[in-house]
This record gives sequence, structure tokens and C-alpha cells, in this order.
Amino acid sequence: MKWYIAALFTVLTSSQGILTTLSQSNGKYKYDYATVPFFAEVFKLIVSSVFLWRECKKLPPPKMTTDWKTVRLFPILSVIYLIFNNVQFATLMYVDISTYQIMGNLKIVTTGILFRLFLKKKLSNLQWMVIILFAVGTTTSQVKGCGEASCDSLFSAPIQGYMLGILSACLSALAGVYTEFLMKQNNDSLYWQNVQLYTFGAIFNMARLVVDDFRAGFEKGPWWQRLFNGYSITTWMVVLNLGSTGLLVSWLMKYADNIVKVYSTSMAMLLTMVLAVFLFGFKPTLQLFLGIIICMMSLHMYFAPPSMFVGLPPTVISDPESLVIVSDDHKAES
Amino acid sequence: MKWYIAALFTVLTSSQGILTTLSQSNGKYKYDYATVPFFAEVFKLIVSSVFLWRECKKLPPPKMTTDWKTVRLFPILSVIYLIFNNVQFATLMYVDISTYQIMGNLKIVTTGILFRLFLKKKLSNLQWMVIILFAVGTTTSQVKGCGEASCDSLFSAPIQGYMLGILSACLSALAGVYTEFLMKQNNDSLYWQNVQLYTFGAIFNMARLVVDDFRAGFEKGPWWQRLFNGYSITTWMVVLNLGSTGLLVSWLMKYADNIVKVYSTSMAMLLTMVLAVFLFGFKPTLQLFLGIIICMMSLHMYFAPPSMFVGLPPTVISDPESLVIVSDDHKAES
Repeated sequence: MKWYIAALFTVLTSSQGILTTLSQSNGKYKYDYATVPFFAEVFKLIVSSVFLWRECKKLPPPKMTTDWKTVRLFPILSVIYLIFNNVQFATLMYVDISTYQIMGNLKIVTTGILFRLFLKKKLSNLQWMVIILFAVGTTTSQVKGCGEASCDSLFSAPIQGYMLGILSACLSALAGVYTEFLMKQNNDSLYWQNVQLYTFGAIFNMARLVVDDFRAGFEKGPWWQRLFNGYSITTWMVVLNLGSTGLLVSWLMKYADNIVKVYSTSMAMLLTMVLAVFLFGFKPTLQLFLGIIICMMSLHMYFAPPSMFVGLPPTVISDPESLVIVSDDHKAES
Repeated sequence: MKWYIAALFTVLTSSQGILTTLSQSNGKYKYDYATVPFFAEVFKLIVSSVFLWRECKKLPPPKMTTDWKTVRLFPILSVIYLIFNNVQFATLMYVDISTYQIMGNLKIVTTGILFRLFLKKKLSNLQWMVIILFAVGTTTSQVKGCGEASCDSLFSAPIQGYMLGILSACLSALAGVYTEFLMKQNNDSLYWQNVQLYTFGAIFNMARLVVDDFRAGFEKGPWWQRLFNGYSITTWMVVLNLGSTGLLVSWLMKYADNIVKVYSTSMAMLLTMVLAVFLFGFKPTLQLFLGIIICMMSLHMYFAPPSMFVGLPPTVISDPESLVIVSDDHKAES
């Protein structure tokens, strides 16, 4: 089940990039992009409410913790995202978009670190290496190729840009790890947790639209009057897609973990690059091909049963009996 | 000991590229390059003979198999190299030098395959993956960067070029695996095996010089008259370096294996690229950095004791007792 949800998440996330590109005209948004996450939050809230309502009609009723001590943990996530968005914005004032993307791969490693520190999950030596390898693989796929238009060096941005990039990666990881903590802290119904998550999400996104209005001095009128401006079918598909991936993330956070999510997200990025080759006629590069091989190997090594690796130690064939003991242990415990 | 020899081999091999560049003037050889391997073979033959002679004076005398059935196996290696050199030459008629270099990374994988097939060495699943990963890593370091002079696509050569490139990788691997077989077939003295190896090596290299003479119609006179033409101190250092690395390869083949040699050779290539950044002011690229990380990881994962990987299976902590059994086994057997 976990793997089906992760695969679905990957496919939807990768089509998101394609859909967003299709919803633009001449590389520009015809609509206010800030309205998209707002609608997505509302969509997720409606879907989760419907599911929760259906659950409530069944027996046993869903487990719902409603005391303020638990509920107040949910808006904290929105605050983390608020800070993250602002840091992201600040980072982009110092570094160009491709350097920002390459630094974004750091979040794979920071997620591993925060996952270990805050959620107290143990990772084996091999898993640590393989997580770093995954970040290296995604970076490889993004190496600027021969004949690329802009040739700015990765190492030419001011130091503030790199510091903010690292902070950005940490905040992104923190948001992920905190979501996992929220979803796993008790065995409340997933839909009840979602309703809390998306209620605060919708409020914070609405607040952002209001702030944007004040910043622009109400030139285009208040936000509710321009909500649907420039919306097309494709824009609604972007909203639907963003909402659906959000719901899948909730599920993954409750029943799988952050590492599964990070792998899925980055595989989606690679899939988008492959799709771009076919859909938009981009030239396939050697580095994309190499990056995909590296990431596939990392994925396999992270999730493969360790008994696979005990199989045959370098040049020495170990006692077959002890091997059987180890692999049986795993079967029993996993 | 194995690791010291491998490290020394890596350092010498990487300085070989630098020395060869220094021995040229304006990117051209002032001397006949075919004389370099000839002198290197003679150098190795002299060194090995001296060592063998010293061994013969001691007790017990070195083990030396002198029957024709064993000795005749040595010239076969020279024949393999002869074929390899011609295939290499033919390949370069179809593909450019950078595509040839990238295809050269295939020899890491072909060596693994022939090593398994002919020497009957077992490799674990992890080791297979990690060998492929190593080839991916060395290829990554060679990805043509932004702003590179020539932008020829890797995929634009005629099909014959790729076929010959693959054949070339197989022959290179075959030469390595056959050498290991020669050195390990019996427990003859290393120096006696070397003397046979280098005698035939010198003869075949001399034959090449003679063939070159006939091809050129003796325009520059017979080979022995132009042996030292254009030789400088640096050229002699190239000879010395090539000879020394050859002796170290013999040692590695007898007491270590082909995989150690392949790793050393490719790490040398990466080291050369790093040295070129410092010595010749080449621009360091992101892909070189990524390639080095990938190769380091591959190296570590290939040679690290498997007990490291059993440590903590994904999300499950296995029974500590069975772990102890496995790791103790390794200590006892290795």
C-alpha cells in the first residue's frame, strides 16, 4: 500500500510541473499564483471533512482529540511554512534559480538529520551514505550541460545566498519532520488531523492574500474580487493536482515516513525532466541519465532488506548458517 | 600492505598524466611515443631480474616453473594487448576522444563481469551495484560542462564506434583478468613471473617499433638509431613512472585482485583531474566534485566489512546476538 501511494504521489507531483507550465502563457502566470495554494487548501479541507463525516456515521466512531493542547500544535506548522516561504524569497534575491534548485537537494540530507534527531529514528551507516548518494544523484541530473544558455558558476553567489539556502533546506526538512510528528503523535483519525491541518492552512493562505492586497495598496481590488481572475481549466487542474498530492503527503506522513516522501518528491523531479524531454522536446543529457541511475540505486539500497547485503562479504564466503539466522530474524521482526 | 601499494599505484598513475603533459611541447610529442612502453618494459625486466637474482642467492630458492606449458601462457597476454591496441586505434577513427574516454568507464563493469566469469570470484548484490555505481561516478566527473569548447553529443557517433568501444572495454578487462590468472595460477616467485611477463613484453614492443619502421619505409632510419631522439629528463621520468606502475600492477595482481586495480586506476584519473585544477589552473566543475563523492562512496561500500551494513536494517533493529556471530565469522575468516 505504502509503495502504491508513494508511486501515485510521484506521478502526480511530476505532472504538477508540466501542468503549471501549461497553465502559463509565454512563461507568465495569467492568474495570481498565490490563489492556487489557497484553493488547494480549501479543496483538501472539503475532501477531508467529507471523509471525516462519513467516518463519524460508522461504528466505532473515529478517534478525535479536541483539547487545545493538541489542536494548537497544528498552526505551528503553518508558521514554519510562513517562515520558510520568506526565507526562500530572501534566498532568491542572492542566488539565481538554478543555483537555488541545486541547493534544494540539500533538503534530502537535512531531512535525514532532523528525522534522526527529532523523530529518534535510527538509520544504518549504509542508509546514511545512500541518502547522501541520493542528494548527489539529484544534483548530478541538474548539472548544467554543454551549450546551456546561462553559464553562471555555482560558486559565484554571495555567502549570504548559501547561508540562506542552507537555512531554507533546514526549514523545509523541519516542516516535513514536524508534519510527521503531528500525524504520528496519537492515533487520531487521519481525516480529523487533516481537517485541523487544512483549516489552519486555509486561514494562513487567506491571510497571505490579504497581506498581498495591503502591499499592492488594493490596486486590483480586495482578494475575493480577483480570486478567479485568469483561471482556465488547466489552472483548476493545477489546484486539483496540488490538493491531491497534499492529501497523499498526509497519508504518507501518518503511515510511512519523511524519507519515503523525500524519495518520492525527488523521483518526481527526475520524472518531470524525462517527461520534458518527450513533451517539450528538451535534449536528453548524459547527466540526467546518470542521475537517474544513481537515484534508482540509492532507492534500492535504502529500502532493500539488509539480508541482501549480508549475502556475500567481499571475497569471503561466510558461514551459511549464520546467514540464515540473520535473514530469519528479519522476517520475524519486519 | 595491499592498500599502501594500491595508494602508491594511484599516486604514480595520476602523476603519469601530468608528466606526459609536461614532456610534450605545445601538445605534441618531440619523441616517438612508441619507444616509451619499450623502455618501460626493459626497465621492469631489469628490476625484476635483479630481484630474482637476489632471491636465488637466498635459501630456500624461489619457486620457478620453467616448463613450456606454463611459459607459453605469458606471450598470450602480449597478444591480447596487441589486439587491444589495434581495436583502440580503430575505435578512435569513429568516435572523438572524449566519447572514447566516457566509454572507457565501461571497463569497470566488464572487469567485474570477466572477474566473475573467468576467475570464479563471487560478488554480492551490493558489490555489483557498487561497481556499476563506480562507473557512473567516473562518468559523472567527465560530463562536459557549461561553456566547454566542443559540444559534440555523446550519442552522435556511428554505431561501429560504440561496438568497437564495447569490444575495447572487454579486451581491456580480459587483459586484466588474464594477468591475474597468470600471476595466481601457481605460487611461483613474483619476480620469475615478472621476468617472463616483461621479456615477452619487451619483444612485442620491439616488434612494434620494427613494424612502424616498415610502415614508414625506413624514412627516419631503423628504430635503434632513433630510440633516444627528442628524449628529455621528463621523458625519462615518464618511462620510470610507467615502469614503476607496471611493477606495482604485477604485485596487485598477485596479492590483491583486478577490482582493487580498477578502483586504483579510476581514482588516479580523478586525482589527475584535481591536480590539473591546481597545476594547470583548470576550472573546478560541480560534476568533478559529485563524481569524486560517488566514487569514494562506491569504494567504501565495496570494501567495507558487510557487518557494517547489517548494523541497523531499515526501521528494524535486529537481534544483537546474531550480529556478533556474523562479524566474528568474518574476523576469523579474513
